[in-house]
Amino acid sequence: MNTLSENTGLYTDFYELTMAQGYFLCGKKNEQTVFDYYYRTNPYQGGYLVFAGLQDLLYILKNFSFSKENIDFLRKTGLKEEFLDYLLKFKFTASVYSIKEGEIAFPNEPIVRVEGNIIEAQLIETLLLNYLNFQSLIATKACRIRYVLGNKTFADFGLRRAQGLGGIHASRAAVIGGANSTSNVYSAFNYQIPVTGTQAHAWIQSFDEELEAFRKYACINPDSSVLLVDTYNTLKSGVPNAIIVAKELEAQGSKMLGIRLDSGDLAYLSKRARKMLNDAGLDYVQIFASNQLNEYVIKSLNEQGAQIDGYGIGTELVTGKDAGALDGVYKLVDNNGIPRLKISENIEKITMPGRKKLVRYFDAEGRFFRDGILLEDEKTTDRLYHPFHADKNTDISKYTCEELLHKVMENGEILIEDQNPAEINAYLLKRFKQLPEGHKRFISPHIYKVGISANLLKLRDQMLKNIRLKIK
Amino acid sequence: MNTLSENTGLYTDFYELTMAQGYFLCGKKNEQTVFDYYYRTNPYQGGYLVFAGLQDLLYILKNFSFSKENIDFLRKTGLKEEFLDYLLKFKFTASVYSIKEGEIAFPNEPIVRVEGNIIEAQLIETLLLNYLNFQSLIATKACRIRYVLGNKTFADFGLRRAQGLGGIHASRAAVIGGANSTSNVYSAFNYQIPVTGTQAHAWIQSFDEELEAFRKYACINPDSSVLLVDTYNTLKSGVPNAIIVAKELEAQGSKMLGIRLDSGDLAYLSKRARKMLNDAGLDYVQIFASNQLNEYVIKSLNEQGAQIDGYGIGTELVTGKDAGALDGVYKLVDNNGIPRLKISENIEKITMPGRKKLVRYFDAEGRFFRDGILLEDEKTTDRLYHPFHADKNTDISKYTCEELLHKVMENGEILIEDQNPAEINAYLLKRFKQLPEGHKRFISPHIYKVGISANLLKLRDQMLKNIRLKIK
Repeated sequence: MNTLSENTGLYTDFYELTMAQGYFLCGKKNEQTVFDYYYRTNPYQGGYLVFAGLQDLLYILKNFSFSKENIDFLRKTGLKEEFLDYLLKFKFTASVYSIKEGEIAFPNEPIVRVEGNIIEAQLIETLLLNYLNFQSLIATKACRIRYVLGNKTFADFGLRRAQGLGGIHASRAAVIGGANSTSNVYSAFNYQIPVTGTQAHAWIQSFDEELEAFRKYACINPDSSVLLVDTYNTLKSGVPNAIIVAKELEAQGSKMLGIRLDSGDLAYLSKRARKMLNDAGLDYVQIFASNQLNEYVIKSLNEQGAQIDGYGIGTELVTGKDAGALDGVYKLVDNNGIPRLKISENIEKITMPGRKKLVRYFDAEGRFFRDGILLEDEKTTDRLYHPFHADKNTDISKYTCEELLHKVMENGEILIEDQNPAEINAYLLKRFKQLPEGHKRFISPHIYKVGISANLLKLRDQMLKNIRLKIK
Repeated sequence: MNTLSENTGLYTDFYELTMAQGYFLCGKKNEQTVFDYYYRTNPYQGGYLVFAGLQDLLYILKNFSFSKENIDFLRKTGLKEEFLDYLLKFKFTASVYSIKEGEIAFPNEPIVRVEGNIIEAQLIETLLLNYLNFQSLIATKACRIRYVLGNKTFADFGLRRAQGLGGIHASRAAVIGGANSTSNVYSAFNYQIPVTGTQAHAWIQSFDEELEAFRKYACINPDSSVLLVDTYNTLKSGVPNAIIVAKELEAQGSKMLGIRLDSGDLAYLSKRARKMLNDAGLDYVQIFASNQLNEYVIKSLNEQGAQIDGYGIGTELVTGKDAGALDGVYKLVDNNGIPRLKISENIEKITMPGRKKLVRYFDAEGRFFRDGILLEDEKTTDRLYHPFHADKNTDISKYTCEELLHKVMENGEILIEDQNPAEINAYLLKRFKQLPEGHKRFISPHIYKVGISANLLKLRDQMLKNIRLKIK
C-alpha cells in the first residue's frame, strides 16, 4: 500500500513537471508569479459554494517533496538530470492567500491566491485543485442538506460508496458543511469528528430470530441501541420486536435510543412506526432513516409529515451527486509583476489579470450585498462593474465591507491555527445566516452579483484589446 | 498527513466495530460465515460492469490491523477493553473467492465471496465495498470510452477534478478499462502506468509571445512536444505559431508530436487545424483534444468527422459521471453452515442464500450466452431459472461453461500474482469481444440474463415461505 504522505511530490499531473523543467532550463526559475484559484459554476445548480479543503492543502504543501525513489522514477520518464537534482532539494516556499474555510463563495472570485517562483507555483496546481475542488463540492452538498433539515441530526454514512480514498476527505467536508457525525472511523480519528453507527442486516441475519438479535445487541449497548427494523418486515416484525426489547430495557432502567428504517416508503413507515412506539409509551425512542437520501428526498419527506428524527446520508452526500466535481481552475495572472491574460475559444473562460483582492459588501442588516474584485493595490472602490457589461454597475460607497483573502502561508509555513470540522461549520453557520434567502433555494436561485473595480476593468479590457490587435 | 497504510483497521464504518464487538461478547466469534459481494444496477444505464479493484483490496486486507494508537482512539468511542485487546491482535485470516479483475459482470451475481469468522468477515465490509465499488465504476466508464474510440489513444487527465485521493484508484481503474496512459504521476509510479502530459496555458502566458513559448518548449522537448493552441486564438494564432515551430523543428531534424485543442467546437477546429497542418506538409503532426469529454461527446465528434487522433479525458472519466457510485452491497448468506436470507421492504433487495458459485455459459461462437448462479456443491445444472418468474427458464445443458469464481486469498494470504493495469485490460479486451453487441450499446442495451439453478430457487423459496409464515 503506497500512501500520499510518502510521495507527495508525485501527486501531480505530469505536465506540471515538464513545464517546471521548461521554466528551469530556460532560465525562468526565479520569476515570481501569481496564480488564482476560482471556479466557474455553482455546483448542484445552486446559488453558492461552501469553501473547504484549505487545512489539508496547507499541510500537504508544507510537506511537498520528492524522495530519492521518486526521482529514480522520474528519471525514467525522461526528465533531465539537472532538473532532477533541483527536485530532490525542492521545498515549497510560496505564500498563499485564501478565504476562510467555511466561507461562502461565488463563481469567478479569486478565492485562493498563490505567490511564489514559477516552478513551485506551477508544480502544486493539480494538488491544489484536487484538494479544494472536492472538499468544497462536498461541504456545499452537506450545507444544502443541513438547510432542509433544520435542527435534525444527520450523519455521514457514505464511506462504502465513496470514490475510493476520496471518502477520507468527504467525511471531513461533510461535517464542515453541516453533518453532525460520520460513520467513517478513519476520518473521525484523523479529524476529530464524532463517530456514530449502529447495526447492519448481517447482525440480524446471523441469529435465528430477529428478536434474539435485537435482545443481544441491546444487552451489550443498553443506552445506545438503534435497531434496524427492516430485515424481514418493518411493521409486522421489526417494530414490534423493537418495542418488546425497549420495554425489557425499561424494566432494567435503560432507554433504547432508536430504530432505523432502511427501505420502503420512509414517510409512511415512519408515521406508522411512530404511532406504534407512542402507543407503547415509547415516545422517547427516536426514528432514524437511511437509504439513498438527498436534500430533495428529505424536503419531500418533510412535506409529507414523515416522523423522522435523524438521518444517515451516504452516497449522494459523499459523491456530491449530481455535480460529481467542482470546476475549479488555477490560472496564472501575473508574471514578474506583469499582469497576464488568457482568452480561449470560450468567452467565459477569459481570465482576470493581475494581483487582486476580494471584498464583500454588506447591507444595513449585515447581509451579503455584493462581492467585488479589486486590484491588490486599490485601497477601496466606489463602484462595481459587471465584468462584461460595464453599463451595469452599482454604487457601493455607502456599504460596509470586509476583505476576504487572508495570508495563510508564508515561505511554505502555515500561518493559521488548526480547526476541527465542527469549528469550521460554526463559522459557516454564521455566514449562511448573512446570505439572503433567494440564493439558498434549490430551483433557480437568485444569482449573487460579483463586480469588478473600474481599474481592473480597464486593465482587463486594455489587455484584451492589445491581444486582439496582435492576432488580427 | 495521515495515511491509509498506517491506519488500515480504522478504514471502516463504526457499526462494523460495534457489531464485531457484539459478536465477540455474545460468544459468536468463532462462527463461520459467508458474505457475498454483488451489485444491483449497471452503472450509466449500460449493459454490463467491468470488475476492478481486487488487487488493491487484497493488499489492504492482508495488512488490515489496528495500531496501539488506533486502539487508544477506539477506547474513547466506548468499545470495551476485552474487545480492544482482541482488535490489537487482530489479523485477517479469511478466504476470498473472486471473479478476475477485468472480468465482465452483471447485476445480482455473487462476484466476490468472503469466508471467514464472523468478526473478520464483518469488519472488512466497508473497505471491500469502498475499493470494489469505485474501481469497477471507473473501469466500466473507461471501457465505454474505449468502445467509441476504437484504436485511438486516450489518456486519463482527471486528477485535478477527481474526488480527492480517489484519484489514485481512478487512474488505475481507467487503464484497466482502456485508457492508454495517465497524467497522474502518483498512480503511474504506484501502478506502472505510462505517464503523459504536455503543457498548460500557464506556460504560454508566462512568456510575452505565444510563439516564443512554443519555441522554448519545443527546444527542450524536440520530439515530444504537444503544443496547446487555444490560449489566445486557435486558428489565427495557436495553429499558425505551432506550424512555424514544427517547420523549425523539421529544419533541425526533429518532428513535433502534436497540438492540443482545449476549448471551442472541437469538430470544427480539428478539421480546420488538420487542413492547415496538412497544407504545411505536416501530416504527421497529431491533433489531441480535451475539455469536458465523455463517451457521448466523442461518439458525436466521430459522427461529425472530427480530425482528432487522441483524447485527454478527465472529470467525467475519473468521477464516473453520471453514475457517481456503483451500488454494490455485501450480504451475509450463510452462518455456521446455515443459509441466511434478508427480505427488506423492497422486493429487489431480497438476498440469495447459501454458498454459491457463478458459472458462465457460452454459445457455439464462444460468446456469452447466460450466467448461472448455482449452489457451491452443485457440480452443474441443466436448466437456469429466472429468480422471480420460474416459468421463464432455459435449457443450458448443451452449452460449454466456465466457473468464474477463483480462490484469490486463503488464511489472509494472497494467492494470485500481481498484474499491472495494462495486463488486466488485455484480459478485459478478450472478454469484451465475447460479449454480444446488444449489451454494449448506450441506449437501452439488451439485458444479459442471469439465472439460478433449480436447487437454489427451491432453497430461496422455502426460506422465504418460512419467514413469511412466521411473520403472519
